[in-house]
Amino acid sequence: MKAVYERAVCYYETDRMGIVHHSNYIRWYEEARVHYMVRIGVPYDELEKRGILIPVLSVSSEYRKPFMFGDTFLVELTCDSFNGIKCSFEYNVINKATGELCNTGTSRHCFLRKAPESVDGEWDMRPVNIKREYPEIYEKMLKGVG
Amino acid sequence: MKAVYERAVCYYETDRMGIVHHSNYIRWYEEARVHYMVRIGVPYDELEKRGILIPVLSVSSEYRKPFMFGDTFLVELTCDSFNGIKCSFEYNVINKATGELCNTGTSRHCFLRKAPESVDGEWDMRPVNIKREYPEIYEKMLKGVG
Amino acid sequence: MKAVYERAVCYYETDRMGIVHHSNYIRWYEEARVHYMVRIGVPYDELEKRGILIPVLSVSSEYRKPFMFGDTFLVELTCDSFNGIKCSFEYNVINKATGELCNTGTSRHCFLRKAPESVDGEWDMRPVNIKREYPEIYEKMLKGVG
Amino acid sequence: MKAVYERAVCYYETDRMGIVHHSNYIRWYEEARVHYMVRIGVPYDELEKRGILIPVLSVSSEYRKPFMFGDTFLVELTCDSFNGIKCSFEYNVINKATGELCNTGTSRHCFLRKAPESVDGEWDMRPVNIKREYPEIYEKMLKGVG
Repeated sequence: MKAVYERAVCYYETDRMGIVHHSNYIRWYEEARVHYMVRIGVPYDELEKRGILIPVLSVSSEYRKPFMFGDTFLVELTCDSFNGIKCSFEYNVINKATGELCNTGTSRHCFLRKAPESVDGEWDMRPVNIKREYPEIYEKMLKGVG
Repeated sequence: MKAVYERAVCYYETDRMGIVHHSNYIRWYEEARVHYMVRIGVPYDELEKRGILIPVLSVSSEYRKPFMFGDTFLVELTCDSFNGIKCSFEYNVINKATGELCNTGTSRHCFLRKAPESVDGEWDMRPVNIKREYPEIYEKMLKGVG
Repeated sequence: MKAVYERAVCYYETDRMGIVHHSNYIRWYEEARVHYMVRIGVPYDELEKRGILIPVLSVSSEYRKPFMFGDTFLVELTCDSFNGIKCSFEYNVINKATGELCNTGTSRHCFLRKAPESVDGEWDMRPVNIKREYPEIYEKMLKGVG
Repeated sequence: MKAVYERAVCYYETDRMGIVHHSNYIRWYEEARVHYMVRIGVPYDELEKRGILIPVLSVSSEYRKPFMFGDTFLVELTCDSFNGIKCSFEYNVINKATGELCNTGTSRHCFLRKAPESVDGEWDMRPVNIKREYPEIYEKMLKGVG
């Protein structure tokens, strides 16, 4: 399933070059992931309430054409792999007005859960196998792949 | 005690007007507070490890002259009130090269602690009286006032 | 005219307290202003193309209740004064699900234009009287007041 | 030349996971580049005053261990290629207290200059050959490579 997320560029996302600062695309990818997780029936805020985190293992981004204030962007997101332990996404960021592909990106993620014996406030997370431990989440995420 | 925090403007803090985006001054105030708390012997990360949070109740900022990329700013911070339940700070942001006062601001804060019965992941915070419950923190913060 | 701007909280807008970082409300006000300017027929990107900037002179914010990831916020914006030289706005930020007023704020602005003799890359801006020099913009902004 | 940039983590750089949000590493790379350009005698703000921009063509980042509020990070930057038309950098982000390598990254850049006939406010940039047109900058950048 290809999910499309749409938003207008914010003024504060631009820098003194006059274009959107390159770090913001990494945030746009996250916005698109959050939107996607709602679409497939696994809202990320509900996952977190159940103690599951999906941190980023790696991210990459290619900048072809800049976005300006006044532009609206589309992020086409594809979940291109998921096995219950890791997953990865691809992103095409398109200028809505012109249809041009302005940026492409990828991200890889794993699934973590707080260690039962972890002290409050400490970062003591353990990998979690979604397929084995949360089969209903696994099914929903699997359907979204491709 | 007047604490002075110094840093160079970051490129990503500018916007397409060519100047530092106004929202960043609110972040500079926070950086200056964190620096101040270390100076008075109460590092904020250690407070949080003990379960104490100091959220912002209000903030205000007056913008007189812009900062540009290439500038270095100084934040002169004064803790102008503290009674163990609330505290407030004043900020003067100065251009290091010219000595000009470019921005002034204020912030008010309270002290919170997680409710003992709170569920993990929920925001269930209660006011805490620092004077009564953490007298050694109270003494250090009191000495910094003015 | 009261304009209402709506958006979901972004994950990257939260901090380690588990709530939206207070600096982001200043950005939300800006998003609401940009949305408002489109509504009254004076899109801010078009103003900038004509050389007009509307920088922030001051801002204030009162934090009553925090926003969490998963929440949707509404910003009710009112332009409470405008005379062609300065203008000011009031903001009520409401939790969409509960209807609670979680944050209030204000901002004051002036109107600037690049000095004709300014060197490229330098910040050489002059106040501009919108009423005298851009009467059609003046009329549109005036209609929005209140 | 390996340049080392050091800074404490800011509170507002953390997210509700309790760790530094992954988008901020992209900004840390930029801070390290700006610091590096000063070190080799080509401050980026002076380049921009001469009309030269060095936008990002691509960026990648691998996250091995998270940073928390209270940590200080080091960015070891290496300029691993430069030919006057493009350049690329590698980044190692290290936890100062533990010495652990927590994040690695890369970025690729080109050199642009405003087109002479470009209209004010428009993004009309042309590639520039630093070797041919700014030989003294070329020499300084070349010395930093490796």
